[in-house]
Amino acid sequence: MRFDKFLFINMTEERIRLESLKDKVVSAAEAALLFEDNMVVGSSGFTKAGDSKVVLPALAERAQKEKIKITLMTGASLGHDTDGKLAEAGALKKRMPFQVDRVLRKKINDGEVLFIDQHLSESAELLHNKNLPPVDIAVLEVAYIDRDGSLVPTTSVGNSATFAALANKVILEINTAVPLDVLGIHDIYQAEDYPYRNVIPIVAPWNKIGRKTIPINPDKIAAIVFTDIVDSPADIAEPDVKTTAIANHIMAFFENEVKLGHLTDRLLPLQAGIGKVANAVLTGFKDSNFYDLTMFSEVLQDSAFDLIDSGKLSFASASSITVSKECYSRVFDNLQKYRDRIVLRPQNISNTPGLIRRLGVIAINTAIEFDIYGNVNSTHISGTKIMNGIGGSGDFARNAFLSIFVTQAASKENAISHVLPMVSHVDHTEHDVDILVTDIGLADLRGLAPRERAQVIIDNCVHPDFREELQSYFDRAKERGGHTPHLLEEAFSWHIRLSETGTMKK
Amino acid sequence: MRFDKFLFINMTEERIRLESLKDKVVSAAEAALLFEDNMVVGSSGFTKAGDSKVVLPALAERAQKEKIKITLMTGASLGHDTDGKLAEAGALKKRMPFQVDRVLRKKINDGEVLFIDQHLSESAELLHNKNLPPVDIAVLEVAYIDRDGSLVPTTSVGNSATFAALANKVILEINTAVPLDVLGIHDIYQAEDYPYRNVIPIVAPWNKIGRKTIPINPDKIAAIVFTDIVDSPADIAEPDVKTTAIANHIMAFFENEVKLGHLTDRLLPLQAGIGKVANAVLTGFKDSNFYDLTMFSEVLQDSAFDLIDSGKLSFASASSITVSKECYSRVFDNLQKYRDRIVLRPQNISNTPGLIRRLGVIAINTAIEFDIYGNVNSTHISGTKIMNGIGGSGDFARNAFLSIFVTQAASKENAISHVLPMVSHVDHTEHDVDILVTDIGLADLRGLAPRERAQVIIDNCVHPDFREELQSYFDRAKERGGHTPHLLEEAFSWHIRLSETGTMKK
Repeated sequence: MRFDKFLFINMTEERIRLESLKDKVVSAAEAALLFEDNMVVGSSGFTKAGDSKVVLPALAERAQKEKIKITLMTGASLGHDTDGKLAEAGALKKRMPFQVDRVLRKKINDGEVLFIDQHLSESAELLHNKNLPPVDIAVLEVAYIDRDGSLVPTTSVGNSATFAALANKVILEINTAVPLDVLGIHDIYQAEDYPYRNVIPIVAPWNKIGRKTIPINPDKIAAIVFTDIVDSPADIAEPDVKTTAIANHIMAFFENEVKLGHLTDRLLPLQAGIGKVANAVLTGFKDSNFYDLTMFSEVLQDSAFDLIDSGKLSFASASSITVSKECYSRVFDNLQKYRDRIVLRPQNISNTPGLIRRLGVIAINTAIEFDIYGNVNSTHISGTKIMNGIGGSGDFARNAFLSIFVTQAASKENAISHVLPMVSHVDHTEHDVDILVTDIGLADLRGLAPRERAQVIIDNCVHPDFREELQSYFDRAKERGGHTPHLLEEAFSWHIRLSETGTMKK
Repeated sequence: MRFDKFLFINMTEERIRLESLKDKVVSAAEAALLFEDNMVVGSSGFTKAGDSKVVLPALAERAQKEKIKITLMTGASLGHDTDGKLAEAGALKKRMPFQVDRVLRKKINDGEVLFIDQHLSESAELLHNKNLPPVDIAVLEVAYIDRDGSLVPTTSVGNSATFAALANKVILEINTAVPLDVLGIHDIYQAEDYPYRNVIPIVAPWNKIGRKTIPINPDKIAAIVFTDIVDSPADIAEPDVKTTAIANHIMAFFENEVKLGHLTDRLLPLQAGIGKVANAVLTGFKDSNFYDLTMFSEVLQDSAFDLIDSGKLSFASASSITVSKECYSRVFDNLQKYRDRIVLRPQNISNTPGLIRRLGVIAINTAIEFDIYGNVNSTHISGTKIMNGIGGSGDFARNAFLSIFVTQAASKENAISHVLPMVSHVDHTEHDVDILVTDIGLADLRGLAPRERAQVIIDNCVHPDFREELQSYFDRAKERGGHTPHLLEEAFSWHIRLSETGTMKK
């Protein structure tokens, strides 16, 4: 940012409305000096949105020169490269509750960074309940500081309200690229501490029950840094043959549920995990007969705004907006248009089990692999190497009205089957999975016992190249008996074969 | 029951207070004729308490002579032999959501009865949401029928309110052994259907928010049968060396949490699964400094009433009372004493995720086995054969303030280790387990990454006979890398060795 004194004074007036904080402005490098080795740091940022743009990168630079290792807690993943730079510089001792960075992932899998994979609703709970060590410093991106010292968040809320309340010190990053009229798209509410916790009074996605700003004790604000760097854009993958096939299976299923009288054309509030399948499914609604849809989700992607624009989606509740560059301008240049259609909540509200069940959410999440009994692995490659993390999929799947998991049937030129005898890591148990979908087809597991589930999954979801062998596994396991027939000595043979020969095929 | 006309008239007046229902009284055998092949039957009964004493057994007798197979849904397990007799007679096609019967278990594992193992909070949800087929007939034990036709339950509520609302026809079993003043120990509340579901307004275990009786359309009542058979008594095992050791580890942990300021001497509402470990833990509170304790649980066992009597437990909320013969008399001969100290709720209220999180429940449940990363198997022997079912352990563990799982470190003269490289079936993932306890010691997993969890578990929970080999597994797995190091080809080797040689030892 080029320094211009008049612009700076104007910016300060506009963005720091509490007089006593105006002398807290420092550079990112200066702010980064506040971190000490072994500190627990909380940071804003949820799937790239609203993360620290300059202070954490400045910490990464500092860590390249001196030994400083922190425990970093965020909302969810950070923007492009931040986690990678911190990991590269050796600045991360421990990281939670979610990440997606290639460099960090390698460090985690090499055992150099300790990662805690948490349900996204739970990190704030664990802090409030003192089941995690206290936060020394928080770094929070804000649009501006209001006259009472309270904070206006930007494109995500994540765990920022918790960090603001509990951290010992707070560094604020005021992002001048975020327009001032972002005020009001957030609904900041925090449950009372135990044993005095009350009802969270949300009964519909559009209910706003809290404040517009995050309360904070201004004495805790140790530094303020200005930035004008926008969020890393989401990489939006256009629907392809497989994701379109998956979306079509889901759409046909919903249509049939309406026909059977199980759902209305309004469906129920939708949750969709991030990524191209979720985008494909939501895109599928555009040309459907469904109407007056709502979302009660974690992340709003491009497709949510496309659905709002097309008149299909009446309201969307989430914890962050993670969109492409084009969509970012569309949203933030037209906030008055979207203001009454969206709300961003703290993730311990957007993802809280009680609300998901109360609202009757239809949850659609992505699996890495699932097995013939409907257990789902969302996180690990061959049982050992983590990809990203469980995110909010557990919060939603367990408590949903309908819990749907999707994955491609096979990949790598069909060397890998994503439907297996036994998953190599379990994130979602058979108890929590209603519907499984691959590009091959949909398995409706409701009301089925394990042996029934297996046959429906084999018949509907498996890639033809693997169907015969999977049927053979199931048939031979059944001969040995059991409620959930398995051949333990063979259960992981497909994974082992893959690692030995490069293919799961015999 | 010996037939005495005057007694019968008196009994009818007292127990059937709605005139139009008095001519519905039939024998159990007559009532059993209402069942048809392939019907879906809902029945009262939760861990032996308040189940059908004569109608389901009469159905079992009928099924010995003619082909009739039903799908049977209950609250949880039924009393002594009922499930066994039904299974033996071939009367069960499908069974959900829980069972503990030896005969039925064998039929399930042989593939002759299809069992659906469900979170106990979910069965009612699935029925209301039409994710399960509709209930044709319900069999409900009641103390009496009130003047408006509504039903006074007995020793459990379970899913009875749901069955009364949704079943096509209802058979009532009036149990004259249950005193009339049982009225008022139940709190019958059902959430609204989607999309109009409202807040469940419970903020403390003692809140009563509903009716005293179960509403029902009297036109649905197809038959009334009298019985005076009391619930099968619970088998109370006195604390032994192992369960006492486990209880002591937990008590020391709680004391330390109080010392650290994480909890007060009142703790938070307790949930304890059924069985001897739970009884031992609750018994441990008797001579402790904790006071004004509460329970928000599923089942009240003898130990809960002992704690009430000793002045330690102020209030207990659950879905059933499952006690020994001695305790049964103590409770039901002194209902005025316990009336203000207990409440029985429908299991979709006692176990609902939102309330468990809102109240901050401390959940203590039993594992069959757990692994070095803290994944828990609650249901399966060697990955295939079911024992009982997940019950409410998932409802509580996922949403608890603290989630504790207990098991003995080793059994069968230490041929079997209950701490393993990898569990053979996952019911509770690493994400949902805070504390693991065996008779050897306690592993506090809060704030730990998988590699840290493994070392803490190996150091604290494993039986010495298995420690070295488990450490070797972990060390060798780490060499291969990964966030969750495993050797897939060896992960189940302990289970396989057990089945081949009768011991997990090399």
